[in-house]
Amino acid sequence: MEFISRPGEIENRSMEIIAPYLKGMNLTEDEKKVYSRIIHAAGDPEYAPIIKIHPEAISSIKSAISAGKNIYADVEMVRTGINKRVLKKFGGEVFCKVSDDEVRKFAEGEKITRSMAAMRIFGKDLKGSVVAVGNAPTALFEVLRLAREEDICPAAIVGIPVGFVGAADSKAELAAQNKIPFITVSGTKGGSPIAVAAINAILYMIDETRGL
Amino acid sequence: MEFISRPGEIENRSMEIIAPYLKGMNLTEDEKKVYSRIIHAAGDPEYAPIIKIHPEAISSIKSAISAGKNIYADVEMVRTGINKRVLKKFGGEVFCKVSDDEVRKFAEGEKITRSMAAMRIFGKDLKGSVVAVGNAPTALFEVLRLAREEDICPAAIVGIPVGFVGAADSKAELAAQNKIPFITVSGTKGGSPIAVAAINAILYMIDETRGL
Repeated sequence: MEFISRPGEIENRSMEIIAPYLKGMNLTEDEKKVYSRIIHAAGDPEYAPIIKIHPEAISSIKSAISAGKNIYADVEMVRTGINKRVLKKFGGEVFCKVSDDEVRKFAEGEKITRSMAAMRIFGKDLKGSVVAVGNAPTALFEVLRLAREEDICPAAIVGIPVGFVGAADSKAELAAQNKIPFITVSGTKGGSPIAVAAINAILYMIDETRGL
Repeated sequence: MEFISRPGEIENRSMEIIAPYLKGMNLTEDEKKVYSRIIHAAGDPEYAPIIKIHPEAISSIKSAISAGKNIYADVEMVRTGINKRVLKKFGGEVFCKVSDDEVRKFAEGEKITRSMAAMRIFGKDLKGSVVAVGNAPTALFEVLRLAREEDICPAAIVGIPVGFVGAADSKAELAAQNKIPFITVSGTKGGSPIAVAAINAILYMIDETRGL
């Protein structure tokens, strides 16, 4: 077989191919890892100029996870993709409530999306934790509202919802605030694997048992 | 609140925004639904010219699912994203073996990826079923090998692995064969939500309880 089929080798080769797209961008080594893993997950080097990482985001996520804080995800695909093995070492878990009956009922009553209802129900649990939004702009808007109006501030927000209705606006609002360190992508692009890529890149940094 | 927060409305508005990107493409109504849902999932209209749908793919997937056939996925994020409610109505399930111990051991022994090992272990179960590959080129290469060498032919392959090592080649090989109807995307782009979008678009077509 001519194609590469050893997992470590595939990943290393992929990172080599991505490296030239990051030339001249003045990134820290940690930032390079986040950028590379996002571009790898999307198969799309055009992510390079639209990724935005707050200067304290990576260190803040490292500290929170190392201290055993949880990750709160907007959708099940984000929960599924996050590396639970590394997270568990430090005592954290990933939570997602979007499919819970309680959330469905609350969303119907309030006439809001289930993703938004789920974040509102997490409420104070978000304080000091890591929030990962990979799908729903309304979830991100709600997390930003909780920070602004109720002073519920996560340690960091990885906010990369996708699409043509609200996503770009929600990410612009995230990037414009300065209360909470963030990782985002401007415009309409994004999605669960992009949010997962950013989180996993950082989990691997604090997992001494593996490289990249 | 100024943003739209009712789920149905968000989806309809998104589809309206996407429609102009499909103008002049000479697509069937069903194809338009698959294209729209993929572009919606990626937040990226540049998918329009690179999506490839075999003329029998949508009808073949509709028939297989309606007959209660299963979907075999390469990664857990694909399994998570597929709408199980609709699938279950017809008696089908989504299977993914990539995290099974059996698969891990087999992959280590054979020095192949776990995604590839999982497809090899599914083996004859793939016959007449729907295969969904959203991440691993090696899984798609293996499904194509099973068809070519062992005459194990799925009803259709949604093959949209992502990345810079093998993905474009595996998708080119899928599009070049004519034994099995397929849905794919040429080049390096793709991923779990893209494969999920294609499958769910078709599931919604055969679920009379909702529109697109």
